[in-house]
Amino acid sequence: MATPQPPVPGHLMAGELAEQPAVLRRLLDEGAADIRRTAERIAERGPRFVLLTARGTSDNAALYAKYLLEVLLGKPCGLTSMSTTTAYQADFDLRDCLVITVSQSGGSPDLVASTQAAAEAGAITLAVTNNPDSPLARVSEFHVDVLAGPEKALPATKTYTAELLALYLLVDGLRGGGGTEAAEVLPKLAEQVLARQEEVRALAARYRFAERMVLTSRGFGYPTAKEAALKLMETSYIPALSYSGADLLHGPLAMVDNVSPVIAVVPDGRGGEALQPVLDRLRDRGADLVVVGPQAEVDRASAGFALPTEGVPEELQPILEIMPLQMLAYEVTMARGQDPDAPRALAKVTETR
Amino acid sequence: MATPQPPVPGHLMAGELAEQPAVLRRLLDEGAADIRRTAERIAERGPRFVLLTARGTSDNAALYAKYLLEVLLGKPCGLTSMSTTTAYQADFDLRDCLVITVSQSGGSPDLVASTQAAAEAGAITLAVTNNPDSPLARVSEFHVDVLAGPEKALPATKTYTAELLALYLLVDGLRGGGGTEAAEVLPKLAEQVLARQEEVRALAARYRFAERMVLTSRGFGYPTAKEAALKLMETSYIPALSYSGADLLHGPLAMVDNVSPVIAVVPDGRGGEALQPVLDRLRDRGADLVVVGPQAEVDRASAGFALPTEGVPEELQPILEIMPLQMLAYEVTMARGQDPDAPRALAKVTETR
Repeated sequence: MATPQPPVPGHLMAGELAEQPAVLRRLLDEGAADIRRTAERIAERGPRFVLLTARGTSDNAALYAKYLLEVLLGKPCGLTSMSTTTAYQADFDLRDCLVITVSQSGGSPDLVASTQAAAEAGAITLAVTNNPDSPLARVSEFHVDVLAGPEKALPATKTYTAELLALYLLVDGLRGGGGTEAAEVLPKLAEQVLARQEEVRALAARYRFAERMVLTSRGFGYPTAKEAALKLMETSYIPALSYSGADLLHGPLAMVDNVSPVIAVVPDGRGGEALQPVLDRLRDRGADLVVVGPQAEVDRASAGFALPTEGVPEELQPILEIMPLQMLAYEVTMARGQDPDAPRALAKVTETR
Repeated sequence: MATPQPPVPGHLMAGELAEQPAVLRRLLDEGAADIRRTAERIAERGPRFVLLTARGTSDNAALYAKYLLEVLLGKPCGLTSMSTTTAYQADFDLRDCLVITVSQSGGSPDLVASTQAAAEAGAITLAVTNNPDSPLARVSEFHVDVLAGPEKALPATKTYTAELLALYLLVDGLRGGGGTEAAEVLPKLAEQVLARQEEVRALAARYRFAERMVLTSRGFGYPTAKEAALKLMETSYIPALSYSGADLLHGPLAMVDNVSPVIAVVPDGRGGEALQPVLDRLRDRGADLVVVGPQAEVDRASAGFALPTEGVPEELQPILEIMPLQMLAYEVTMARGQDPDAPRALAKVTETR
């Protein structure tokens, strides 16, 4: 009689990390056309303002969408402070607003309540989820399925990159298309990035005993810095603080020195250019600076992971950028003898109200 | 001949902390009427959507204004991602938008550039600053002066509470008034809070050797948690992470245990009620929980600072709530033998672009 094997620590997260090229491929092949039609129907309604509602990892995907909507469409956007609806019952006027709610499970009661309230206040509502049968999808006027398949590890990985790509395809559709072809290279490049596990393991060695970490970026890379900090923190429990480069100079820089390692996400484009003064200040202070970005930026840092960004528009780079950082969270956690699949105290569907 | 005295560490910050009751009094006596007239002129223009632009401490004041605008006025709001304008030159349509830029100095070039761009994109622009002669005030259509007097310590204290009160008076004016009288008690209560230095010193002893701290709240208390984390970090360099209670349950809770002390800001009102499940989880995990809030909440925690909230509407409590936490940042920093007046690496006017 076969004895059930004890679960191998981290095997769920490792498996879901590795699925990402296939998930991106599936979304391009089986999801893009539907997303395009949904975007066209929303565009006909002419929303003037966009509100994005999400929590946790999906909130970082929502922030990415905010950059897309602002830079590519010129739409003013806000991130929802959910308690103004759920705790304070604010009486909003949301006519001409598109409210996009992003959630892996589509099951959080506060997201459902907040989306319902937005619809009653006159908003066009769109749910972006990994579950078309979820309560959130049902209460929303429009739905986009990120088609990532079931996610079992507690730290979200493949659903994050699937949400990013789905949101990119949506915003591209809202502007009338033209950007989908640029995304076709992503599955192959994702595969190349994920194959470089040894490089990430070498980086992880440097953080095994870290007491704290700082992550920074600007522009399209900023959601990546926030998501990497969340991922590191929820798996390894290392306090990881994330700041936009500009905010870092406004206060928290005092905390950075040779005992607080810094990871900078340097987009290949205008975000990376805007980050240069921050990188200079960090180098001046002798910070241990690890860069995820183009090879030339890695060469000027203490160490790093060179991303294949050639031919990838800056607005698509976040889908690749996060992968070495997801792998880093996994490797640091394994090196510390913990199980990244099941961080203490977390539940997969968080029942906040 | 008198020898110049060496500066006493922390004397600037201590002096500015102590000025707060007088600053609030001055703003009520000499600023409120002007702010009311400005609000009436803005209300006539009928803005439908509000964007708030700021960095650092002023960004936390902007977040407070977001709660006020949403809860009291039902206006959808967003916080500006400045790089979408300054780095990516997004081509916004900001007709019917009110853009409020909050800045102590009014001198940051990126805030000036971003506000100018907003005006060109059709927005109504309002600057809230401590300097009516600043470049930011000059490029904005409307201006509110927070009348806090010169601020010399690098960590902002009196300008934060002055910004909060000015923003409250503004939003109250936008809704047609009626809430100014409720603010009249603040100077006296602020004086009572600031006199309780010994209590704060006792709390500070528990964090002298802390390697990290977590701050949490919900609703109107959330900007306080963020500002307290920034203040602690920029003065004492202790990594201080802030989360809305709901987000804390979505990931970072894994990091909280008996080695990560938690400070919860518990509003006396709906925000505090919404925070209860989070406080229960923290108590279940045996977290070292310090509460700033009503006496009954302090009694259920490991320790705390009881705020005089009776008769103070929840939306005005943030102006008092932050004071014991500003004092805590000061006391922890002094206990660690550092100078809170001049954190390493910070400049008073941050020249981000």
